[in-house]
This record gives sequence, structure tokens and C-alpha cells, in this order.
Amino acid sequence: MRAAVIRDWQLRVDDIAEPTPGPGQVLTKVLACGICGSDLHLLQHGREQRALAEKFSEGLAPEPVSMQMFVPERDMVMGHEFCCEVVELGHGVSNLTVGDVIVSMPVAFDHTGLHGIGFSNTYNGGYAEMMVLNEMMGIKVPAGLPPELASLTEPLAVGVHAVAKSRITTGESAIVIGLGPVGLACIAELKMRGIGPIVAADFSPKRRALAETMGADIVVDPRETTAIDAWRQADGMRPVVIFEAVGVPGMINEAMRVAPRNSRILVVGVCMQQDIIHPMLGIKGELNIQFALGYEPTEFAAALEAIADGKVDLSSWITGTVDISGVPQAFVDLGNPEAHAKVLVTPH
Amino acid sequence: MRAAVIRDWQLRVDDIAEPTPGPGQVLTKVLACGICGSDLHLLQHGREQRALAEKFSEGLAPEPVSMQMFVPERDMVMGHEFCCEVVELGHGVSNLTVGDVIVSMPVAFDHTGLHGIGFSNTYNGGYAEMMVLNEMMGIKVPAGLPPELASLTEPLAVGVHAVAKSRITTGESAIVIGLGPVGLACIAELKMRGIGPIVAADFSPKRRALAETMGADIVVDPRETTAIDAWRQADGMRPVVIFEAVGVPGMINEAMRVAPRNSRILVVGVCMQQDIIHPMLGIKGELNIQFALGYEPTEFAAALEAIADGKVDLSSWITGTVDISGVPQAFVDLGNPEAHAKVLVTPH
Repeated sequence: MRAAVIRDWQLRVDDIAEPTPGPGQVLTKVLACGICGSDLHLLQHGREQRALAEKFSEGLAPEPVSMQMFVPERDMVMGHEFCCEVVELGHGVSNLTVGDVIVSMPVAFDHTGLHGIGFSNTYNGGYAEMMVLNEMMGIKVPAGLPPELASLTEPLAVGVHAVAKSRITTGESAIVIGLGPVGLACIAELKMRGIGPIVAADFSPKRRALAETMGADIVVDPRETTAIDAWRQADGMRPVVIFEAVGVPGMINEAMRVAPRNSRILVVGVCMQQDIIHPMLGIKGELNIQFALGYEPTEFAAALEAIADGKVDLSSWITGTVDISGVPQAFVDLGNPEAHAKVLVTPH
Repeated sequence: MRAAVIRDWQLRVDDIAEPTPGPGQVLTKVLACGICGSDLHLLQHGREQRALAEKFSEGLAPEPVSMQMFVPERDMVMGHEFCCEVVELGHGVSNLTVGDVIVSMPVAFDHTGLHGIGFSNTYNGGYAEMMVLNEMMGIKVPAGLPPELASLTEPLAVGVHAVAKSRITTGESAIVIGLGPVGLACIAELKMRGIGPIVAADFSPKRRALAETMGADIVVDPRETTAIDAWRQADGMRPVVIFEAVGVPGMINEAMRVAPRNSRILVVGVCMQQDIIHPMLGIKGELNIQFALGYEPTEFAAALEAIADGKVDLSSWITGTVDISGVPQAFVDLGNPEAHAKVLVTPH
């Protein structure tokens, strides 16, 4: 089958063997799979990050349950935001049937352990024609919901989780810095929870327009008005949580610099490089920094439900569609925030 | 009166004018005043920190209520951990009388605003013979409690506050890194709250012995066993809060590196320099970093009560006593953790 393959930190389109479902697993046809910014990050910084991870794990006990790490010298197919159609049932599968359209958290398991789908040499992700999923992880997509929208379950779940981790409650306000899909997902969830005002900031006019569509109350270009100034003019009284959804060095310190006393910073941007902070900024304001990653199964299911029930309309996120041969160019194009928010891979 | 004075970031012993109490204030005689590590930090890094603070406040609105900043070119007398005896009443004072022994949060106020005692050109701290305090901030020391022990109210309050900020609860465990007075105060408060096990780490045998006196359950020399290994052997199951009480660059990242998934780091060490962190360490463990500074009035009062009621015995902290002429040498001596934990200045 055709797939966009990574080997030695290089992306290329190639033919690879079609996977086979084991017991409790299903073979599926990929209907749509979103390209995630963290996949771009991994290509760019993965080698450096891998070296750091090895250095930092020195002398530490292994985690009790951990994903198997991929070997960069072997083939790996990314893509962890997928919606698929079941085409073949493995042994013992009873709750899914051929023709079912499903989404799944990007986790597979078998007798060899846990595998992160899209970050594994064994379980290919959705930048391929076919993929294997565990029946137990599959959630049926309600009839009538287009696979393109269902594939946005995963990125929305990231926002659902980040907002939950922030412990934000009614009566508090939010600033969201960085309006890529992660920042937009945070805004969508904040809005669903009735939080306001939501102040959003990004250099890109296109992304600012998307933030308005998601329900941000005030949207600013940081070159004209900073988010904290806009927040102060609009509110300035309620407790505020600053969502850092950019993920490049310097952003955490800048959030610490502008954060009002006793406020919280939720870091959901994935910065893979080392970063400089000034602890005194945190100390004098008694700030709280919460890092967030991924989501819980219940949050993933809640994200699908919100999309299916029409509580949130994410159709504006989809700014492009490519087939597998278009993946490498899409990785390049996604570098331009004016051109794209979310590009979907539709292999068939 | 004699005082240990700072001018142009240099410490010297000098004669300065005796202060005069304004309305609602009292003149007091300093009975005992602890030398705080942050005073040593301020002498060493204050200039650099001042420049950074100015840079970082660019474009930000001033805080609604803020302490007046001292001018480094003018005289400043540090010392914010004091116990005093009232010798003269200002206009309108009715709740204090001459002869009362009191402690106070190191804050003074008058028609010109709020002043941090010990960090002010107007209100000298306790490295002097006399000082002015606001009646409203004074708390009478229970009869029979020696002024030396009462002067430890302030550093104990730092621990009371840090532990409260950490939101630690029964059933959770604690690791305390750095066993200067701040780390020891955290241990004392953790013990009073019934938290356990408490694992404590410091390179200094003397400080490790003090940590045992405070009630730490396991005390390690990081050159032999790391705190996280000791915690894992002793417990490894309960949620853990890591208290960072060292305050030098690299400590926050190291706490992030060893912290188990979903754990909390409470930063109470005051690092005045810039620092390097790897955000991925926070992200992959979904860590929470809470910075803490100072204390609330109720926490300050609770600290005095704990000392007075004998809930905690801090007498082992006091490793030296000097008069005002001995302050500069004490600042030097405190650099050696084997020689000293807390040195008290007793001007009379």
C-alpha cells in the first residue's frame, strides 16, 4: 500500500506492506487523517529530542507502563488524527463489523505491549491507505457525520483536556496565545464551558478569523495590541488562565512576564527545544504552570460527541485535502499559517 | 544608632538616625533578628535582578498595590525576621503598650504607601538597634517565649505558606530538596500536617541532621542516594510533591526530570538568575509547577502559635548569635552550611 514514510528523520512516499489485524483488532481503510503540527515538529526536532530524552532518563526507573519507542532507522508512518472504515475483522472481534466508520485514540496494544499509533515501527498511522486498530479503542462515528469532521476528534480532544487540566471555572477568563489547531481547540472547549471573556492572539489574520469563528470574544494581532492589554481593557478583574499554544522557546517566559499575580499558565504548545525562564517572574507573582499532553478516553469520546451533536462546528479548520502523494508538500505548506490551518490526508 | 547598612550593594556597619514612629506606629528595640538567605542573595544578585525587573516590566501596567522599591544608592538596612520590644508609642496607638514584645510581618504603611521592612530606604530592618512598626501589624509574643525563638516566626511562615500553596493533602508524600531554613520550615509544616513519608536531601551533614530533628522520615546525601530513589524505595506509590528549596539555576529542570507523571513541584527557593528548562520534561509528565513567595497574615500568626504552643521546636536552627558589628562576618560565615543554619542578630 502507499504511505508517507519516515526513515532516518526523512519523509518520503513509498510502498509498504499492508498490515494484518491480530486478535481483537480490525483492519481499516483510512477515510481522513489530519496532519498535526507535532508531526512537523518531530521531523524537525525529533533527533535532538531523542538525544535529550536519553540523556534525561539517566538513572531514572522506567515508567511502569510506557509506549514502545520507535527506531528512527526503520520505517515509521505518522498520522494520529484519523477516521477509518472497518474492512476486515481480526479473531474475536464482536462489537465492530465491516463497514463501520470509527475513530480511535492513537494507541494500539498486543502481546508485545503498548504502541503509539503514528509513532511506532509496528502500527502505521493514517498517512497510509490502511491501518490496524484495536476494537476496544474504536468509537463508532454517528451516522451522517462526515469522516473529515470526525477526524478532528483528536485535535479537539487536546483542547478538551488542556482546559480540564487548567481547572478553569465559570467566573474566570482566558487568554489563548497561538491560534493553530491546538489553540483553536482550547477556544472551542472554553466556549462550550461558558468561559469569558476569551482573548486570543496570533500574528496570522487567517488564524485570528478562525478564532472568532470558534467563539473568541476578543482577537488581537500582538504587533498592534498585546493579549494582556486587550484582556486588561476588556476585563482585568477576573482570575485569568493563559493558554500557551505556540510551543517555541521564549513563550513560557513571556507568559510568566505578563501574567497577573496568582494566575495560571497552561502549557499546551509542544516546545521540543531547551528554553530559558526567569524564576523570579514566577516567584514574585506566585504563578502556577501546568503542562498538558494528550487526553483521557472520556475526553476523546466527549470531543466526538460535541462534533457530532453540532455543539461545535470545526468545518472552518479544514483548509486543504491531499492524497498520500501530497503529504510531503503539505508538510511544507503547513509552515505558512496564511495558507492552512488543518490539512487532511484522504488516501482513497 | 548602629546598623548594618547597604549602600551601592555594599554592606557596612555605620551610624544612622534613629527612626521616629508616625501615627499608628511604635518605636521598638530589636531583641533578635534572623539573617535570611535571601538577604545574601540580594547582596550578590540584587543589581542584576533590578536590571532584569526593569526590563521585564516594560509595557506592563503597574500592579494595583505594590511596595515602594528601594533606591540602591541610598542607605538601606535589611533584616525582616525580627522580634522587638515596644519602647515608644506613636499618636493614636491603643492596642500596644511600652514593654510589649511583638513580632510583625515585615510590612509598614503610612500616607506615602506600602513599604517592605528590610527592603526600604524609609523603614529600616532588624539589623539595627531600633525600628518602627505599625501597631496594626504587631502580634504580641506569648509570655515566656524567648525572643530568639519568636524571631523564627517569619521563616517558619514561609514554610507554612509553601505547603499550603502546594495543595498537599493527607495520603500524599513529599520530597524536600535543600535543607536551609526554608526547606526545614517546609518539613516542619509538612510534619505538623501529618504528611509522610517526607524525604529530604542536602549535601550538608549538619543540615541533614536538622532535617531529622524537624521530622523528615528519610534523609539522604544526593552524592550517595538521590531523593527520588529514596522516595521510590520508601513509597513510590502515593502522589508526591517536590519542594525545591535551593534556589540556584538548574534545580527546577532537575526536579522536572525526576518527577513522576502528574506530580507537582513547589518552587520556594529564590533563584534570581535566569534558568534553563526543557519544556518536554514538563509536557511528557503533565507536571505542575507552583511558585510560592511570602505568606498570608493568618499563616504568619499560625507560625507564631505553632512555636509558642511547642508544636514545633526550632531551637536547633539557631547556630550563632552576633551583635550588629558581627553582621558582615555572619554574611560570610553563612556561606558555609556546615557552620550555620540560622544566625541571629541581637543588637542589645
